[in-house]
Amino acid sequence: MKLAVVGGGSTYTPELIDGFARLRDELPLTEIALVDPDGSRLELVAGISRRMLDRAGHPAKVLATSSVREGVAGAQAVLFQLRVGGQAARDVDETLPLRCGCVGQETTGAGGLAKALRTVPVVLELAEQVRAHAPEAWIVDFTNPVGIVTRALLDAGHRAIGLCNVAIGFQRRFAGRLGVDPSRVSLGHVGLNHLTWERSVMVDGMDVLPKLIAEDGQSIADDIGLPVELVTRLGVVPSYYLRYFYAHDLVVAEQRAKPSRAAEVAAMEAELLKLYADPSVDTKPALLEKRGGAFYSEAAVALIASLLGDRGDTQVVNVRNAGALPFLPDEAVIEVPAVVGAGGAVPLPVPAVEPLYAGLIANVSAYESVALEAALRGGADRVRNALLAHPLIGQEAVAGELTRLLLEANRAHLPWVVSA
Amino acid sequence: MKLAVVGGGSTYTPELIDGFARLRDELPLTEIALVDPDGSRLELVAGISRRMLDRAGHPAKVLATSSVREGVAGAQAVLFQLRVGGQAARDVDETLPLRCGCVGQETTGAGGLAKALRTVPVVLELAEQVRAHAPEAWIVDFTNPVGIVTRALLDAGHRAIGLCNVAIGFQRRFAGRLGVDPSRVSLGHVGLNHLTWERSVMVDGMDVLPKLIAEDGQSIADDIGLPVELVTRLGVVPSYYLRYFYAHDLVVAEQRAKPSRAAEVAAMEAELLKLYADPSVDTKPALLEKRGGAFYSEAAVALIASLLGDRGDTQVVNVRNAGALPFLPDEAVIEVPAVVGAGGAVPLPVPAVEPLYAGLIANVSAYESVALEAALRGGADRVRNALLAHPLIGQEAVAGELTRLLLEANRAHLPWVVSA
Amino acid sequence: MKLAVVGGGSTYTPELIDGFARLRDELPLTEIALVDPDGSRLELVAGISRRMLDRAGHPAKVLATSSVREGVAGAQAVLFQLRVGGQAARDVDETLPLRCGCVGQETTGAGGLAKALRTVPVVLELAEQVRAHAPEAWIVDFTNPVGIVTRALLDAGHRAIGLCNVAIGFQRRFAGRLGVDPSRVSLGHVGLNHLTWERSVMVDGMDVLPKLIAEDGQSIADDIGLPVELVTRLGVVPSYYLRYFYAHDLVVAEQRAKPSRAAEVAAMEAELLKLYADPSVDTKPALLEKRGGAFYSEAAVALIASLLGDRGDTQVVNVRNAGALPFLPDEAVIEVPAVVGAGGAVPLPVPAVEPLYAGLIANVSAYESVALEAALRGGADRVRNALLAHPLIGQEAVAGELTRLLLEANRAHLPWVVSA
Amino acid sequence: MKLAVVGGGSTYTPELIDGFARLRDELPLTEIALVDPDGSRLELVAGISRRMLDRAGHPAKVLATSSVREGVAGAQAVLFQLRVGGQAARDVDETLPLRCGCVGQETTGAGGLAKALRTVPVVLELAEQVRAHAPEAWIVDFTNPVGIVTRALLDAGHRAIGLCNVAIGFQRRFAGRLGVDPSRVSLGHVGLNHLTWERSVMVDGMDVLPKLIAEDGQSIADDIGLPVELVTRLGVVPSYYLRYFYAHDLVVAEQRAKPSRAAEVAAMEAELLKLYADPSVDTKPALLEKRGGAFYSEAAVALIASLLGDRGDTQVVNVRNAGALPFLPDEAVIEVPAVVGAGGAVPLPVPAVEPLYAGLIANVSAYESVALEAALRGGADRVRNALLAHPLIGQEAVAGELTRLLLEANRAHLPWVVSA
Ligand SMILES: [Mn+2]
Ligand SMILES: [Mn+2]
Ligand SMILES: [Mn+2]
Ligand SMILES: [Mn+2]
Repeated sequence: MKLAVVGGGSTYTPELIDGFARLRDELPLTEIALVDPDGSRLELVAGISRRMLDRAGHPAKVLATSSVREGVAGAQAVLFQLRVGGQAARDVDETLPLRCGCVGQETTGAGGLAKALRTVPVVLELAEQVRAHAPEAWIVDFTNPVGIVTRALLDAGHRAIGLCNVAIGFQRRFAGRLGVDPSRVSLGHVGLNHLTWERSVMVDGMDVLPKLIAEDGQSIADDIGLPVELVTRLGVVPSYYLRYFYAHDLVVAEQRAKPSRAAEVAAMEAELLKLYADPSVDTKPALLEKRGGAFYSEAAVALIASLLGDRGDTQVVNVRNAGALPFLPDEAVIEVPAVVGAGGAVPLPVPAVEPLYAGLIANVSAYESVALEAALRGGADRVRNALLAHPLIGQEAVAGELTRLLLEANRAHLPWVVSA
Repeated sequence: MKLAVVGGGSTYTPELIDGFARLRDELPLTEIALVDPDGSRLELVAGISRRMLDRAGHPAKVLATSSVREGVAGAQAVLFQLRVGGQAARDVDETLPLRCGCVGQETTGAGGLAKALRTVPVVLELAEQVRAHAPEAWIVDFTNPVGIVTRALLDAGHRAIGLCNVAIGFQRRFAGRLGVDPSRVSLGHVGLNHLTWERSVMVDGMDVLPKLIAEDGQSIADDIGLPVELVTRLGVVPSYYLRYFYAHDLVVAEQRAKPSRAAEVAAMEAELLKLYADPSVDTKPALLEKRGGAFYSEAAVALIASLLGDRGDTQVVNVRNAGALPFLPDEAVIEVPAVVGAGGAVPLPVPAVEPLYAGLIANVSAYESVALEAALRGGADRVRNALLAHPLIGQEAVAGELTRLLLEANRAHLPWVVSA
Repeated sequence: MKLAVVGGGSTYTPELIDGFARLRDELPLTEIALVDPDGSRLELVAGISRRMLDRAGHPAKVLATSSVREGVAGAQAVLFQLRVGGQAARDVDETLPLRCGCVGQETTGAGGLAKALRTVPVVLELAEQVRAHAPEAWIVDFTNPVGIVTRALLDAGHRAIGLCNVAIGFQRRFAGRLGVDPSRVSLGHVGLNHLTWERSVMVDGMDVLPKLIAEDGQSIADDIGLPVELVTRLGVVPSYYLRYFYAHDLVVAEQRAKPSRAAEVAAMEAELLKLYADPSVDTKPALLEKRGGAFYSEAAVALIASLLGDRGDTQVVNVRNAGALPFLPDEAVIEVPAVVGAGGAVPLPVPAVEPLYAGLIANVSAYESVALEAALRGGADRVRNALLAHPLIGQEAVAGELTRLLLEANRAHLPWVVSA
Repeated sequence: MKLAVVGGGSTYTPELIDGFARLRDELPLTEIALVDPDGSRLELVAGISRRMLDRAGHPAKVLATSSVREGVAGAQAVLFQLRVGGQAARDVDETLPLRCGCVGQETTGAGGLAKALRTVPVVLELAEQVRAHAPEAWIVDFTNPVGIVTRALLDAGHRAIGLCNVAIGFQRRFAGRLGVDPSRVSLGHVGLNHLTWERSVMVDGMDVLPKLIAEDGQSIADDIGLPVELVTRLGVVPSYYLRYFYAHDLVVAEQRAKPSRAAEVAAMEAELLKLYADPSVDTKPALLEKRGGAFYSEAAVALIASLLGDRGDTQVVNVRNAGALPFLPDEAVIEVPAVVGAGGAVPLPVPAVEPLYAGLIANVSAYESVALEAALRGGADRVRNALLAHPLIGQEAVAGELTRLLLEANRAHLPWVVSA
């Protein structure tokens, strides 16, 4: 079984490889194609990947290539994990919004919009290559903003599913707190990518979330960076991305007083690449854990195994709404538990969503529509509308200036931007 | 035909009386019952009302009473135009939110929530009296927040319709700009009370909005206090209440630098009451125009005339959604053009709402559900949830402190608030 | 020796009494006159004071009176510790500025100005009574804002010294950290009341501040609520009042999310008064420590003992600048170590103040001049100028609205405010 | 008489040349040396300068050179009008502070500090060349921040005077309003460069400022962008740079909603250079007026003429305080009217400065000391201290992050910045 990883030169790839090695029984790979336009980086990452597989006794070959065609040809699944513009563009995403008093984040708010603008056209072009050279392959999209990108892929008719590690992270941490195997924990996870709430935590048919909150509320709240009274009052666990909404002033104040996450990550990546270049390193470096993305490889392996093996188990993924959340358009993409088999992922029925969450979900989903329109068709007016539609921006004057700034800063990645 | 005005002691009542006098052919009233708990104020208002009707040669009797039962008995329509807590409570609504950095407004945001908390129980009790003593009467609700109050009335099974003067104001001003009779102008008005956009302006079957914007964009934008580029880019005209969203930082900055509107109105009311007390005054004082509420009487007369006369014409009112906006629950209350007849108001089909507006409508409508729950059932947690649900607040810490402050300041009007 | 305490009905008085009892050798009092306009509260406080002195075997009589004349007659020292308007006025001081986005504090910023406006005229009138009935007595002013109040007293020719517990608090805490007797610790304390920095900590002729910061920097920084890097970089310890300057946005954010200190203290005072009413309580209640004001009684006893006993020791007090800080006018009041004897307090020479501190001191001292002018002469324009002069406000629009709000809220205490 | 203009390649130079041509009787130049490291730009500017002088029949030769030595050798006066880093660096000065919620301005606040850091070492090096090759020449410094730069020059022992066009602008505009010749108008101008107030406007020995404010207050206030009530209440006219203090929140809000001034100027400069390249253009282009700097040439000519001609007239300049403002150190640089002759400029006595202005002057002057220390000696800690000392920043956390950002963005101009 061949798997292609587009953006395989990411410093994060060894995390994936580590997962493939550990979970080889679940996903018997014979070839892993790492595809990346950055040849020298790809070489380093492929090197450590091969050493890691060797050490683990895993038989898969690693193909490193800058040719998407070569990489995806014959693959049964293709992971998209790219970052258009790299950490430099991310740094802009995280810092430019601050200039207008708005949260700076790479997937939420103005930064997330900039990322969508840069990313959607690139992903769609890559997907066309998948369609051409591996027409039966599933595209698993890790590339952020996953909600918008997945919607773009589905609208273009691709066999795509969006994936994020927030849900699996909660599952593993809750399992750890409960002392049970993660496989016994099912989440009542609902919302959009990076805008979700855990409304139940089922273990053997029982909802243990009330108990978890009663016993561990403070610790759970600390993990997501929100006041414990929010968690106890609502009886749900928002993801830590909700902090950008529920505590946006605090986030802005914090971001004003420290370097961006991109700057941190860029420093970390430089160090990681040094390690990857060391021929004696044949295991995942400890530093990689600070890079984020815990359990991504578990999630990816599970999803691909179920898609290719028609397992019919339940996983949290990004799929078409198709009525699961009746207050959203059918064509919206949502993030919920779904049954995953050879035919794709079908959302489980979702208990009625309380208006406190539904209102925000509807608002952000509407923003995603406007944002996707801007990403597909370009134009400063569409970008400005998307910013006006976003609940974290939503002001005409700020939207105007942010549009100007974001387009200027992302000009190299946006062919449609006309010189000022 | 008997009409009852609950809150008839309002300084605004002479505006209504003036309309009744002018539009007597449309609405042949024989008795106007002014109901108000504030006897001395009611006396002044009833006095000038009688003198105005006399001068106009209108035959209707004016009944001034503090008994709701007496006032509504036998009425065919009952207007609700009350203000629980008066200008003092409004002043709190407009200023307390500023303390937490939020817009202070009497119908939008935290102030609107406080008003809903105070008002819904009172309105529901009054409506029960209408049910008991005038079971066939229509309740026309002017009382803000009209969206939430109307929803509360409908949920309790009352024959109620909500009314606001924003739409009729646009209709009259557009007609004025176009030099046509207002009756020829139909608005493509959509949204929730105080959260609406005019998406078309039909005159004799033609949409003249593009032309209006092209020719008068700046002046239209000035009227609503928003940048002309917003109006031209979107091709729609938001109501000036959208300024509290699209320019919230500017609003907060302005509100920090000047007295509240409540303080202005309180001063105006004192002057108006002096005029009403003057037996030589028998026409509507000019000062009343600064009090706000232009064309309210026209809107009220038209609505009651159509309800009682089964006219079947189209008017902008607040009614159940019932599928008109598919992205909202059926039971939500929306503000759209509707056909008004003896059976009530039935929304006209609404062209699909663009996500830029639908997202915000959905968010605020969801807030209204949470707010109504808080108003009906009380409890600091429900209030805090409503504040968290509102896009102009939406932060846990601010919601917590605003809850404390609003409940403390409104304690006299909220029997369920437990002493701290 | 007779001592009068004006504002003796304060719930804080038992703290003073406790000090008088413990330090009787230092200050051999024979009579303590508690003067307060609030008779019933005074009764409770006098009751516990008498019981505490009895239990300690202290011979002093306690006189409780609402007559200033009776209270101060024959006194050798008079403490001023009053609070015009009580906790209710303080609550306004702490919360109204937030409405305009400014720090709410009872002695700093707009709140401190309001307090000065209310307090200066009252204190000057009381001081006239001291002049008339105890012309030789020293006035020790605890009443905030101590800098402005002391300046007013000195300008009017009174024998007055201002006192604050910030310096003695640092002395005691540093002594504790060092494990030495406080008497061996001399502070290089400099600035204005509530705007001070410790630039050295001398123990037996050695400056141990560098060592203290090196070893305990984090803990010292935590005490003052400021980042440790500030303390280590500057090598000085600002008082925690500097947090209102050096972290004003953070303070505003915090204050927006919690009740005022006045509300907390009001609740505490109600509990304290219950304890004072209990005839079995004859010691200082533990709760009193949360009331603030640690070591106030030590500071007061030491100051009075030195003034009356001509001891010539060094204490940190508020006195005329008279050249000690050459960048301030001679008539400014500063807070520095001074030699205290029968002739009053004479500042020790102050090492040149670094511009980083001198700039802020000069700015706030200039504000104090403008504020005192406003307090003495009244008038909205003078108040607005004082707000414009304050570095934490400093904006014309905000100064205008804050003036209106503060005057309205303090009208009962400001005879010169004309009704709007 | 030879005059050297360091930074002579500025697009602004034709403004100067125009003044030299008009005012040739006052300043009989025989040689104008334009010195600039940017040779191609210098060529264009020198070209139009020569054509302008030719057209005016002015005999002076124009020397265009990149050699400071050649340019200044033999000059009797040297103008410094350089901009280290050009409009690109200015853009950073104007926009980076916004990211931390602070005013973005090229001479005030964090932007002004960055400019000082870049500029002071360069200016001092240039001044050494003047000392070496034109030891008798006066240095007239236009280079911002003029206060700090002049202080640096004087501290290093140079014959330097700082010059700004704010005062002459007021003089000319007041003269225009009054219909009198500017020479009859003397300003009571006081403060620091870009932090000044006009406290009197003398015409023939009479102060006409009260009359000007009474009659033209609104128009004067509009010119400086501040509320008229500020001008009428205080009876003084602040310079428009005070708007960055007295209305800083408004400025930040505006700056968040529009492009920087640097971006505008960069566009303008590109156009100007095109005009300069056109051999048919031999007069000052109208566009140059939008570039700012009105009356700079008048001010420069007058100052040089008085210095070299020992005229002993009064001009507003930047000089050592030397006791003129007793609340500032003698070595501070202030901006006041001074008598200008061959020996330099001697401040006229300054009437006592009201605390409302003195406090802010003292604070900003102290900041300038800390800033100069940082510019001379480098080091992130000194930079952070300067930011903490500035009343428009003044917060430790913001100062920390702004330090990091400014040093990173200005690294190319700050040899002492160590790579992160
Ligand atoms: Mn994710
Ligand atoms: Mn309305
Ligand atoms: Mn104190
Ligand atoms: Mn200047």
